[in-house]
Amino acid sequence: MQIVVNPSSATLVDLLKRPTLEMAEIEKRVIPILAQVKHEGDAALYHFAKAFDKVELNNLAVSESEIEEAKSLISEDLKTAIALAYKNIHTFHSSQKSKETPVETMAGITCWRKSVGIQKVGLYIPGGTAPLFSTVLMLGVPATIAGCEQLILCTPPNKEGKIHPAILYTANLVGIKQIFKVGGAQAIAALAYGTETIPQVYKIFGPGNQYVTAAKSLVTKEGVAIDMPAGPSEVMVIADDWANAAFVASDLLSQAEHGVDSQVILLSKSVDLVNKVNFELEKQLAQLPRKDIAQKALENSRAIILSNDEEIMNASNQYAPEHLIIATENVHELIHKVINAGSVFIGNYTPESAGDYASGTNHTLPTNGYARSYSGVSLDSFVKKITFQEITKEGIKNIGSAIETMAHNEELFAHKNAVTLRLL
Amino acid sequence: MQIVVNPSSATLVDLLKRPTLEMAEIEKRVIPILAQVKHEGDAALYHFAKAFDKVELNNLAVSESEIEEAKSLISEDLKTAIALAYKNIHTFHSSQKSKETPVETMAGITCWRKSVGIQKVGLYIPGGTAPLFSTVLMLGVPATIAGCEQLILCTPPNKEGKIHPAILYTANLVGIKQIFKVGGAQAIAALAYGTETIPQVYKIFGPGNQYVTAAKSLVTKEGVAIDMPAGPSEVMVIADDWANAAFVASDLLSQAEHGVDSQVILLSKSVDLVNKVNFELEKQLAQLPRKDIAQKALENSRAIILSNDEEIMNASNQYAPEHLIIATENVHELIHKVINAGSVFIGNYTPESAGDYASGTNHTLPTNGYARSYSGVSLDSFVKKITFQEITKEGIKNIGSAIETMAHNEELFAHKNAVTLRLL
Repeated sequence: MQIVVNPSSATLVDLLKRPTLEMAEIEKRVIPILAQVKHEGDAALYHFAKAFDKVELNNLAVSESEIEEAKSLISEDLKTAIALAYKNIHTFHSSQKSKETPVETMAGITCWRKSVGIQKVGLYIPGGTAPLFSTVLMLGVPATIAGCEQLILCTPPNKEGKIHPAILYTANLVGIKQIFKVGGAQAIAALAYGTETIPQVYKIFGPGNQYVTAAKSLVTKEGVAIDMPAGPSEVMVIADDWANAAFVASDLLSQAEHGVDSQVILLSKSVDLVNKVNFELEKQLAQLPRKDIAQKALENSRAIILSNDEEIMNASNQYAPEHLIIATENVHELIHKVINAGSVFIGNYTPESAGDYASGTNHTLPTNGYARSYSGVSLDSFVKKITFQEITKEGIKNIGSAIETMAHNEELFAHKNAVTLRLL
Repeated sequence: MQIVVNPSSATLVDLLKRPTLEMAEIEKRVIPILAQVKHEGDAALYHFAKAFDKVELNNLAVSESEIEEAKSLISEDLKTAIALAYKNIHTFHSSQKSKETPVETMAGITCWRKSVGIQKVGLYIPGGTAPLFSTVLMLGVPATIAGCEQLILCTPPNKEGKIHPAILYTANLVGIKQIFKVGGAQAIAALAYGTETIPQVYKIFGPGNQYVTAAKSLVTKEGVAIDMPAGPSEVMVIADDWANAAFVASDLLSQAEHGVDSQVILLSKSVDLVNKVNFELEKQLAQLPRKDIAQKALENSRAIILSNDEEIMNASNQYAPEHLIIATENVHELIHKVINAGSVFIGNYTPESAGDYASGTNHTLPTNGYARSYSGVSLDSFVKKITFQEITKEGIKNIGSAIETMAHNEELFAHKNAVTLRLL
C-alpha cells in the first residue's frame, strides 16, 4: 500500500478522489434489455436466461420442493450462524420502529405521522460463485418488520437452473414466499414492470454488477423507487499506535477482497503503525484464496499520514466512507466528529465483518461519497411516513386568518376560499 | 366535473391513470444548460439570467440592504401569519427528532444510529407571479432543525433583477444567509456543481417547472441527492352525505387552481353529494381570479361513484394521492385503511390549504403515485442516519464463530480472518 506523508490539501483532494464510473456505455446496453422485458414479459426472461445464464429454464419460480431440498443441504453450523445473525438484525431493526405521537401544534390542530410498509418490494440478490445469503437477511428482515405485504426475490440461476441452497434457506427463514430465477438487468426490469409471473413492485433493493446498477437507475425514471445509488465498496480505517496492526490489516483486506475496484484507505498520525500494517498486509495477503483480487485493490489504495486528529477527521468527512473503522485511543472523542459516513466501527474488537454479517446493523450502505446525503438501508427504507392532520371547528378559527393572509399573498384565492367558507 | 358511476375495475384503472410525462424532449434542452454552468460557472448564470429572465444582473447574491428593504415592504398582517406558520411547522418538525438509543443486540455488542444534518443543502424556490414564500418555510425550517450547516437558496429574479420581498423576508426569518438570483435548470446546475459564487451542495430540494424537474433528475446521476421526483399536484377527496358540499368544492378548486395539469378526483358513495359538489363548483369557480386555469384542470377531473367503503379505499390506495381529504361520517375508521397517500386531511374542518401553509405538516409531498414508495419531506429528508457499533473483547467471542461460518460460506476468507485474528 502506497504511503503518503502530510499531503497538501490539494493533493489530499486528489488522493481521496474515487474513480469515475462511466455509466453511459452500460446504459446503452441495458436499455434494450429493459424494453424487451417490458414488451415480452416472461418470454424475454427465458430468452435472457439462455443467453446470459446459459440455462434453459422450465420455470421462473422456485418450487416448494427446491426449498425443502435446500434445507437439507445446509449444515447445522450455518443454520446456527444464520439464526444468530437473524436475531441480532431483527433486534436492531425492530428498535427503529417509530411511534405515532400526535402533536397539537395549536389548540384544535393535531398532526401526526404514521409509518406504513411499502406494499410490494423487490429484493435483488446477485449470483456468482459466492451466495450472498447475508444480503437476504439484510433486506428481508427489515421488510418483514415494516409489514411489506409482498416480498419478491430475484436472483440468477446457475447453469443447472438452480439457486444456491443458502439463499433459498435464508429467504424461506425470513418468510419470503416468491423467489424467481432471474438475474441481471432483466430481473430489475421484471420487478419494475411486472411480467405474467413476476409481480410489479414499488421499490427495488439490493446490490449487483454494473448492469444491475444501471438498470436500477434507469427504472427510477419510470416511477420505481430504489434503495440508493450504488458504487464500489470501500473502507476507511483511522488508527494510531493504540491499534493492533494485524487487526487493521485484516480489516483492510476484507474490503480489498471484494473486488479489484474496492477502495481501501488508512489514515494515521503514526508512521510506525502504518509500517506495521504494511508488513501485516503482506503476511496475511499470502494466505488468502482471493489474493489476486485483494492485491489489485491494494494497488489503488493508500495510507495517508496526517499531523493531528482535526486533519484526520476532516479527511474522513471529506471522503465520506461507506465503512469507517476507528481504532485509536481517543475513539470515543473522535466518533462525535463523524459527519459523513455510512457505518462506523469502534475500537480494536469491532471488525467490519461483524456489521457485514451478524451484529445487527445493516450492510447495505452508501458508497462513492453518497454518505454525504444518504443513509444506509434501515427500517425507514421499507416504509413511507404518511402525515395526518385533523382540525376542529375551533381549530380552524385559530389558524384561519393566517392561512387566508398567506394564500392571498401567494395569489392562490381558491386556497384562501377553502378557509373563508369554513369560518362562516 | 365528469361523473362516473360504478365503473368496472378495468375502467377504474383507466380513470385513475395519470397523464404520462414526456421528459425526453425537456431533458435534451436541459443537458446543454447543465454543461454550460458546469464549465463556465457564474458567467453562464449571468448569461442565462439575460436570456431567460430578461435581466442584466450585477450580482448573483442578494445583499443585506435588499433583505432590509424586504422587511419594510412586508405588511404586519403577513408577518404575523408567517410567524404563526413558522411556529407550527417548527413544532411539528421538531417532534420528528429521533433519539439515539443504543441497543445491545448480544452481550458485548452495542449498535445505534445517529442523525446528522446534511452539511450543505440547496433550496430551490420557483419564480413566477406568485411568490412561494410558504415553500421557504417548508424547506428552511426542517433544514435548520436538522442542523444543516449551509443552506443555499436559489430563486429567479424578476425583470428588474429583484426577488419578491416575501421570499427574502421569510428566508431571513428562517436563518438562510445565502440567497442567489438564479432560476430554472441553471440554478439546479449551480447547486449541483458549484460556481465561483454559489457553493456546491449535497442535496437539492424544492418544486419547479419541467426544466427544473428534469435538471434535478439529471444531476442525481452525478451524485447529488434530491428530495423526491416531481409531478403535477393532485388531490383526492373522499366524501359522503355527512360532508359539506361547499367545503368539498372549495378543496377541489384549491387544487385545480395550481395549474391546468392539476389532478382532482372525488370518490363518493353518494350521487346526491356529487351533484351538490358539482353545483358548488360552478358557483365558486365564477368568483376565482384563476378560473381559467381551474376550469381547465376540472375538465380532466372526475367524480367517481362507488358502492362501498372497501371499493373507495381500494381506489384511493391504488391512486396513491399526494393529498387525501376524507370527509365522511366514519372518517376515523377509514384513516386506518390508508396505505398509499402523501398527506391525509380529516373531517370537514381540515382543508388542504391548512397543510399547504400553516398547520405544521410539510407541503412537499409525493405526487404522481410516488406515495406508494416515497414519504413527503420531513426532518428525515435533511439528515443521514449513521450507524455505529462497538464490540468488546467478550462480545467478539460471543459472535465470532457465527461471522466466521457465514464468511466461510460466502467464500470471503479475509472477512473471516478479521474475526479469527481477534479470537486468538
